[in-house]
Amino acid sequence: MSREATTTDPRQEILRVSARLFQEQGYDGTSMNDVAAALKLSKGGLYHHFQSKDEILFNLMNHAMDITEERVINRVKAIPDPEERLRMLIKLHIGVVLSEGDREITVMLHENHPLPPTLRKRINARKKDYVHFLENLIAEVQRTRQLRGTVTPRAAAFALLGMINWIYQWYRPEGALQEESLAQQYTEIFFQGAFG
Amino acid sequence: MSREATTTDPRQEILRVSARLFQEQGYDGTSMNDVAAALKLSKGGLYHHFQSKDEILFNLMNHAMDITEERVINRVKAIPDPEERLRMLIKLHIGVVLSEGDREITVMLHENHPLPPTLRKRINARKKDYVHFLENLIAEVQRTRQLRGTVTPRAAAFALLGMINWIYQWYRPEGALQEESLAQQYTEIFFQGAFG
Repeated sequence: MSREATTTDPRQEILRVSARLFQEQGYDGTSMNDVAAALKLSKGGLYHHFQSKDEILFNLMNHAMDITEERVINRVKAIPDPEERLRMLIKLHIGVVLSEGDREITVMLHENHPLPPTLRKRINARKKDYVHFLENLIAEVQRTRQLRGTVTPRAAAFALLGMINWIYQWYRPEGALQEESLAQQYTEIFFQGAFG
Repeated sequence: MSREATTTDPRQEILRVSARLFQEQGYDGTSMNDVAAALKLSKGGLYHHFQSKDEILFNLMNHAMDITEERVINRVKAIPDPEERLRMLIKLHIGVVLSEGDREITVMLHENHPLPPTLRKRINARKKDYVHFLENLIAEVQRTRQLRGTVTPRAAAFALLGMINWIYQWYRPEGALQEESLAQQYTEIFFQGAFG
């Protein structure tokens, strides 16, 4: 395979263009023909990579989970202090949500799309892994601080994921509340809220 | 109009059935014919109430905002103490999110559906009114407590809305985390987080 072919991965390109079309005209309103046309591919060329729209959607969601794993979990795992690990997780996760290049892919995780049950289960399993990672980290911070509060790590994990993943709904690049201030304030709210 | 006709409002019934179909088979995957068939209405009977699917979606979102206004804002407005007002708002808003009867309607507010820009603007204006109501209430509590913290009412309002509206994504009626405990823990997290 030539060097050029490896630098622009055709599957990634198909996923990115599909994500944009799904956002613009809806998942059901987008056909495999639309995807092929937008990529200037023949229908056969597209089917060579993905057999169906379900397969594209599944791979899109899977890719969104890869992004979260690579840019958040893998980067914080090695931080020895649990509190620092959690602070960095909040900062990096907000970074992923606000990343212009990835936003159209990661937002797909949260829309109610009709994925076949077996594929839906595989995505949900990865989402649950993330929740558990966060829940364990919160429990670790609580132990370090010797807290015996009434806030459970589970409720705190869902609260934090809600705060961060909801940013998609209201954030505007031209708005007053920008990444650095947002990350700082959300960290403060969450740390006081869960460990205060 | 007979008493029976007023107790089962046909427009409300159309909206409720449409919401269910949109959830099950997607907005784009649902036709006006599907809606009419599910209601055992003639196509003319349906068009008598709503001219298009866009009109149904707009009225559905508008109805979801009515529910929020009636069951949350209108019920807390008269509470004189701002802190009590905010505690009650959190409890009631979580109640709306978890309400089995309204869930399929209110969840429509958060999906990325292709509403025409003029209608989209009207829904967004109502959403903004809710954010502002919450933001002002948080500012009032901060003043009462004479806080000069670094958490702004705006960031705090978005954090709280995220926590609550995200519940749709993970809540299971058979799960361990139920309404009363959830409301209590979220209130604690938020109060410590924003005013701690």
